[in-house]
Amino acid sequence: MTARPPGAPVASRFSLNQWTTKRWSVAEAVDGCVRHGVEAVGLWRQDVAAQGLDQTVKLVRDAGLRVSSLCRGGFLTSGSAESLDDNRRAIDEAAALEAACLVMVVGGLPGVVPGEPPDTAGDGISRDLAGARERVAEALAVLAPYAGERGVRLALEPLHPMYCADRAVLSTLAQALDLAEPHPAEQVGVVVDTFHVWWDPQVFEQIARAGERIASYQVCDFLHPLPADVLLGRGVMGDGVIDFAPLNRAVAAAGYTGDIEVEIFNAEVWAADPDEVLARVKARFGELVAR
Amino acid sequence: MTARPPGAPVASRFSLNQWTTKRWSVAEAVDGCVRHGVEAVGLWRQDVAAQGLDQTVKLVRDAGLRVSSLCRGGFLTSGSAESLDDNRRAIDEAAALEAACLVMVVGGLPGVVPGEPPDTAGDGISRDLAGARERVAEALAVLAPYAGERGVRLALEPLHPMYCADRAVLSTLAQALDLAEPHPAEQVGVVVDTFHVWWDPQVFEQIARAGERIASYQVCDFLHPLPADVLLGRGVMGDGVIDFAPLNRAVAAAGYTGDIEVEIFNAEVWAADPDEVLARVKARFGELVAR
Repeated sequence: MTARPPGAPVASRFSLNQWTTKRWSVAEAVDGCVRHGVEAVGLWRQDVAAQGLDQTVKLVRDAGLRVSSLCRGGFLTSGSAESLDDNRRAIDEAAALEAACLVMVVGGLPGVVPGEPPDTAGDGISRDLAGARERVAEALAVLAPYAGERGVRLALEPLHPMYCADRAVLSTLAQALDLAEPHPAEQVGVVVDTFHVWWDPQVFEQIARAGERIASYQVCDFLHPLPADVLLGRGVMGDGVIDFAPLNRAVAAAGYTGDIEVEIFNAEVWAADPDEVLARVKARFGELVAR
Repeated sequence: MTARPPGAPVASRFSLNQWTTKRWSVAEAVDGCVRHGVEAVGLWRQDVAAQGLDQTVKLVRDAGLRVSSLCRGGFLTSGSAESLDDNRRAIDEAAALEAACLVMVVGGLPGVVPGEPPDTAGDGISRDLAGARERVAEALAVLAPYAGERGVRLALEPLHPMYCADRAVLSTLAQALDLAEPHPAEQVGVVVDTFHVWWDPQVFEQIARAGERIASYQVCDFLHPLPADVLLGRGVMGDGVIDFAPLNRAVAAAGYTGDIEVEIFNAEVWAADPDEVLARVKARFGELVAR
């Protein structure tokens, strides 16, 4: 990974999460970052696979980009061997990319498929939330040392509680830190994503508690009203209801000096010209995060 | 209020929240309860006003029904005198109805209107979440004694965090209890609503902590996927992802012996025949709550 100079100004720590400009391939996103003077990028595994891992490594290296995260490992609640194998592959990819962390979205209730209603007859889904959370802890005990041996840091991402059923039984920073703490901080950290945590009455106390466990800071606004697909309720900073200043200050006070990723899932943003989007989110980052 | 015999079986503690059968007026809901052998009803202020407060009091008294709650007071985050006046009127109505509690939905960020996007230009909304929460505490300090003098119990309802912006800056039981504790338990309690709290990693610990502060237990399922209007994501027990048994046990272990309200906001349920709905929710209550 290209080293970030110590004490770098916040503006230089802007990172483009690739899915903010979802239509761009890895090669196009890398090119876009270079053209817009962006020093870091957050990549997604499926896009890296489409580009080819080796070629992606070469692209980001030649461009001098830092890989602020690889999205994503996780989906551990089934407790299956396949899930562990897939996460080992994700760790290997993060190692090859020298990514600052592998973002872990831990998964929802076993059998619940994002976007699909449960079969209320038979039933095919598990409602054992406590059990699902135990499966995550068990999988982490296997994966953390594997990641550590490869110099990869797992970043547990608490997701907004509205995704508890289908995407993450990990809903708060407090819970993520409880899960992380049995492991060395260089093996298991947490993601602070403004969209997911802004509402949490404990958020400032838990960011302070997190300290060096903060592996990634992701910024994006919470839209009101939410769109029909709540996954796409992420807005450009300033378009929603979040007050970024106190969150920025808390993350800085906790000692985080890494890249700050802008990650927007939003149908209108995805339909817009990616160059225009990148210019817009950079400007908003300057106004609401870097200031 | 008609007294509930001590040690009454759980099935007899079923209460119909009026908005589960939203098409019914107060008179129709009371009649429906009598015909279906339901002993308690949760009423809504706007429907009580449409029926007339005095007539509602007479209807429920003549039918021998308990009023398990009046919905709702709250919307206190603006800090306005009008809001306090309206809540005093709500308390007076709850007193007249001898309701077991007045449910308090505390309100979202000032200026955010449910269902309407914020004006990103000017801007008209406040993003001061901490300030909004302080306004609630201040209003409560005024309203709790007023309620106490009239024998009314305010029931603070933490709402699912997806409603933080527009309906309740109160998102967890822990936060509700922190807010309630400066006041006598007979003046300020909390609502445990399965839809709002099922995801909370601290839910069992906080239900135990709540103890005699539990003023209302409301049951309803969390639908997956959520509908386009997330307010209507409440499902009949068994149609969603919640495991009711451990929540029922926790609320019972905390000492709650009051009525248990079924409150479903759901477009399909509202479109169905109210008699069929009442029969269905009673049956599901028997299977998933009373057992």
